[in-house]
Amino acid sequence: MTGIRELAQRLNLSIGTVSRALNGKPDVNEETRKRVSDAAAAMGYVPNQAGRALRKGATGIVGFMMQTGSQITGEGDVFFMSVFDGVQTVFARHKLDLVALLCSSEEDPDAYMQRVVARGFADALIISATKRHDHRIDFLHSRKIPFIALGRSETDVGHPWLDLDFEGMAETGVSRLVAKGHRRIGIFAPLDDTNLGFVFIDAYRKRLESHGIAFDPDLIFRAHPNERGGHDIAHAIAAMPEGQRPTGFLLTNEAMTLGFYNGLYEVGLPPGEKLAIIGRDSPQAHFLLPKLTSFHLSLRDLGISLAESLLASMPEYAEMYPYGTVREIVPLELLEGDSDAMCADQAGP
Amino acid sequence: MTGIRELAQRLNLSIGTVSRALNGKPDVNEETRKRVSDAAAAMGYVPNQAGRALRKGATGIVGFMMQTGSQITGEGDVFFMSVFDGVQTVFARHKLDLVALLCSSEEDPDAYMQRVVARGFADALIISATKRHDHRIDFLHSRKIPFIALGRSETDVGHPWLDLDFEGMAETGVSRLVAKGHRRIGIFAPLDDTNLGFVFIDAYRKRLESHGIAFDPDLIFRAHPNERGGHDIAHAIAAMPEGQRPTGFLLTNEAMTLGFYNGLYEVGLPPGEKLAIIGRDSPQAHFLLPKLTSFHLSLRDLGISLAESLLASMPEYAEMYPYGTVREIVPLELLEGDSDAMCADQAGP
Repeated sequence: MTGIRELAQRLNLSIGTVSRALNGKPDVNEETRKRVSDAAAAMGYVPNQAGRALRKGATGIVGFMMQTGSQITGEGDVFFMSVFDGVQTVFARHKLDLVALLCSSEEDPDAYMQRVVARGFADALIISATKRHDHRIDFLHSRKIPFIALGRSETDVGHPWLDLDFEGMAETGVSRLVAKGHRRIGIFAPLDDTNLGFVFIDAYRKRLESHGIAFDPDLIFRAHPNERGGHDIAHAIAAMPEGQRPTGFLLTNEAMTLGFYNGLYEVGLPPGEKLAIIGRDSPQAHFLLPKLTSFHLSLRDLGISLAESLLASMPEYAEMYPYGTVREIVPLELLEGDSDAMCADQAGP
Repeated sequence: MTGIRELAQRLNLSIGTVSRALNGKPDVNEETRKRVSDAAAAMGYVPNQAGRALRKGATGIVGFMMQTGSQITGEGDVFFMSVFDGVQTVFARHKLDLVALLCSSEEDPDAYMQRVVARGFADALIISATKRHDHRIDFLHSRKIPFIALGRSETDVGHPWLDLDFEGMAETGVSRLVAKGHRRIGIFAPLDDTNLGFVFIDAYRKRLESHGIAFDPDLIFRAHPNERGGHDIAHAIAAMPEGQRPTGFLLTNEAMTLGFYNGLYEVGLPPGEKLAIIGRDSPQAHFLLPKLTSFHLSLRDLGISLAESLLASMPEYAEMYPYGTVREIVPLELLEGDSDAMCADQAGP
């Protein structure tokens, strides 16, 4: 690769002049700038990231770590792309670039994170899918890398985070279903130790108890958070003895709904007719019949909050975003549909 | 940020020893290695990417440029996440990390690409959504950055590319529909100048002509490639005078199908009953009724081919992947469903 030295020699200019021309400084005349930029293109000159980072102490890049793999986002992602959109809206103001750091599901997230930091190409990080105990949080804190977590964790180093209001979804969801006479309310939970699983189950359990309903672990349905997982849960429900089946269901993952609906039709338990459902809003959900009663939030706005809260924690940007350390639960809005209109006594086969 | 110099001073070791310890060289004893690594963690030492890149001439990172924004992937992406999965399978063999370079739809892709290259943090790039004339290809070639394109382009610098067999989809799709008596066959095309739009329309037109059917530009339906776009096309079809509507439809984008189905039900033209449809397979498509006749390919395998073909073009890896410059059209497999079983004379309201 051609460096700035070779470029300067070829043009018979000083390294300083070439550097100023390449960096768009105003004290270089247009003709020189054009000569330099043409020569840079012809010679395959690549301004080195490393050199820039060393000089300015900033790469201009923020990484968003997300997990990939056929069981996670391998069948399409309906969540992160909208969040990215919001994050980029904020970063564009500061000429920061967002890159998605794709951690394969076959890899240990902690080891991946250490490698990301060792490569050192980002100024700051956004992490997601926080685990109940998350080593990445300790690690980033120890390395003094600015970061924000999408998702709470028991691991708390006083870092900024945003999370969805899983407690609110449990409370509103259980109360709505109980009001229609449901006492056997099923929920989805992830297969791994993602923190949101624990948070939601805890809140669901508390809300049941406040209605005098005993917690039944058989009503927690664990599956992959994708279409197939939704389909599998429908079949798992049908396989239960009739009296033990849930008559209502809270599905807090938006990617599973279509498969869940379809699976319920297959097993003769049509959604909204034989099983009351409250789910999460998504672009797909708008095309379901019966209309899904769902919890909605603007993922773009969530992305904007994530980005602004991250910048608020970075000294270079804190003045523009004087929010301190943001640790915030984002509420969701209930959109009324028809999928939970039935009463408990209509349920069953 | 603490550098290696401060770390060495604090430990009273030479910079060379600290560097060897941090890089896992075998000539450093275990006790020293532990001392160095503990101190590095305590002092927030970050090995600098730039320094590494300068030393080894490699960042270990490959960037995959994709467009984001609510009209593109902002409503969820069912394609790229699976492709990433395949790419990562190959890269894991070489300890290469894949990062997604997210170019906002509000930004010029050419300017974005120039900035990505200026930041210089990736060894190689994968570009997608190639335009009919694509400046990124010229630019990457001029800068001597190894890259592969997912999608053909008229801009050809002899670079490697992979593309889906849009000609094959047009030929098989048109022939299947013509065999059922259809002569008014609608197609979807993108709103922008993505090359696949041109390629598909050309092939569709040729195939129609081989059957003696005149090309009618009113049967090209342009829309955003998402659920909403599919829904809009259904309404656009219903708004046409009856005799001018298509009786069959080729929908080559997989993200639009659910919205298309739903829109057709809304306007009283049930899919497979009043309009014959051939689409693209996706995880969502499996849950549609009537079952979608669709073109299928393994996106994971596509990702694997992309990664291997890129590595084949890089001197460091060419020996392991002796494929030369890969320029290949990937065939799709037809999955028979029920959505195109009806004959043309059953169409209409």
